[in-house]
Amino acid sequence: MIRQLTIFGVGLIGGSLALALKKAGYCKEVVGCSRSAKHLQRAVDLGVIDRYTLDPAEAVKGADMILLAVPLGAMQTVFENIADHIEDGAIITDAGSAKGSVVAAAKAAFGDVPAQFVPGHPIAGREKSSVEAAIADLYIDHKIILTPLENTSADALKKVRDMWEVVGAEVEILEVGKHDAVLAATSHLPHILAFSFVNSLAESAVSDEVFHYIAGGFKDFSRIASSDPVMWRDICLENKPAVLTALDDFQQNLADLADLIIEEDGDALLDAFLHAKIVRDKYVNKE
Amino acid sequence: MIRQLTIFGVGLIGGSLALALKKAGYCKEVVGCSRSAKHLQRAVDLGVIDRYTLDPAEAVKGADMILLAVPLGAMQTVFENIADHIEDGAIITDAGSAKGSVVAAAKAAFGDVPAQFVPGHPIAGREKSSVEAAIADLYIDHKIILTPLENTSADALKKVRDMWEVVGAEVEILEVGKHDAVLAATSHLPHILAFSFVNSLAESAVSDEVFHYIAGGFKDFSRIASSDPVMWRDICLENKPAVLTALDDFQQNLADLADLIIEEDGDALLDAFLHAKIVRDKYVNKE
Repeated sequence: MIRQLTIFGVGLIGGSLALALKKAGYCKEVVGCSRSAKHLQRAVDLGVIDRYTLDPAEAVKGADMILLAVPLGAMQTVFENIADHIEDGAIITDAGSAKGSVVAAAKAAFGDVPAQFVPGHPIAGREKSSVEAAIADLYIDHKIILTPLENTSADALKKVRDMWEVVGAEVEILEVGKHDAVLAATSHLPHILAFSFVNSLAESAVSDEVFHYIAGGFKDFSRIASSDPVMWRDICLENKPAVLTALDDFQQNLADLADLIIEEDGDALLDAFLHAKIVRDKYVNKE
Repeated sequence: MIRQLTIFGVGLIGGSLALALKKAGYCKEVVGCSRSAKHLQRAVDLGVIDRYTLDPAEAVKGADMILLAVPLGAMQTVFENIADHIEDGAIITDAGSAKGSVVAAAKAAFGDVPAQFVPGHPIAGREKSSVEAAIADLYIDHKIILTPLENTSADALKKVRDMWEVVGAEVEILEVGKHDAVLAATSHLPHILAFSFVNSLAESAVSDEVFHYIAGGFKDFSRIASSDPVMWRDICLENKPAVLTALDDFQQNLADLADLIIEEDGDALLDAFLHAKIVRDKYVNKE
């Protein structure tokens, strides 16, 4: 049971967790904190949070569970604002899409990464990000990756794990660097490619016609280019090393493929395309 | 009205045209021709074609409209097999995804590109390609691009245009080179990127974990990597110059974006992502 959950950044991610925990009867009170009273009042009106404050120190008072669901670039400021006000025994977790930078932010704010901080990342839909989109079912059968450090308290880890399992999520444990590499490859890279793809079309010699004859492949392929540009800028900057590694891998693979086209090596092209199809069909078979 | 439509390659594209023309009462008889009697018999059983023959010369006998809906790599052989057997006044068209190579194939087979040949490309779904997937409604509100040459007969162009309009398609005229450039950018490029994306993930240092934590972006982005590898090998080879131009444009754009990440130029990254989002949202607003 959670007595008081304090959420920084009450949007889709934090809001959905609040709704789900209340529905499960697992949390007595949810307190919201951000920089916008209007936004927080809306969350109260929607029944997502019970009350709010704009003061981070006030927000963590009485909290036994604290969730940071703010943009990656804002994590360190929140840590700094609450560092001296967290009550004994309170557990801190977050929902950032990159974990190395959040751990670094915690270390910068607290001196050392606190044992009661459990870095986390819910892999849930993010096309809409507002509190209006929050639903109690969001996490059912979705993966939550927790990335505890060596000094993370086993009790804190258990409590965060329990919280996510109560709302139907499947909790997995990954090392911080591995998390960032995996997410860079499967999520951050395709977003960058989609943005770049749309821009390269817009700048092409036939750009006037290109968007008139939107052909097979464009819509699916470019959908994620409609994602929030601010969030993706932050991710690129906050997960820079892993993103650059994934980008390098891709650029090399693409250059090799271009060479096969230049050399008109049909057999090798077919092998490459067939390999991709087999891999894709193997891992995504639920459509 | 079409008296006899002869279709080479009776799959989704040719089969759907046959069904739609019959439904419209616009075609008396549809004759199929390919290398597989079993496959053609299935098309007869499904009511897609009236009869079939494995002999191309026999197939075009009596035909006033001939459609080549075979893979790009097979176009020239079909042209060669029918060149001496086409009846006076018969019109030829095709459904190839690249037009320069089909025009070149016609020129090689006929000596000159015949005036009664109207190169064409229906922009219609191709995720399934079998005759079983053929439906009479496939072309309704879909674009058909025709790419007539200087010597193309105005009468032939009108008859091919009429045929596609009868089945509900929106006919547009483009120059061959422009068609190939536009399709390379909007369709061929994203397919190549999707294949390369999946392969680069499969070869990454974290490939074991990558496919376990399939995250936001992967499914949409990789869907077209499940496309027919043979068809896409052919397209890469048959539309080589335009594909390489689109690839070059993309690689340059991506390299510039990578530089912005390396330099941590958040403002320029945000500009690039925002631009892509605005362009994408502007042109794809029907979802």
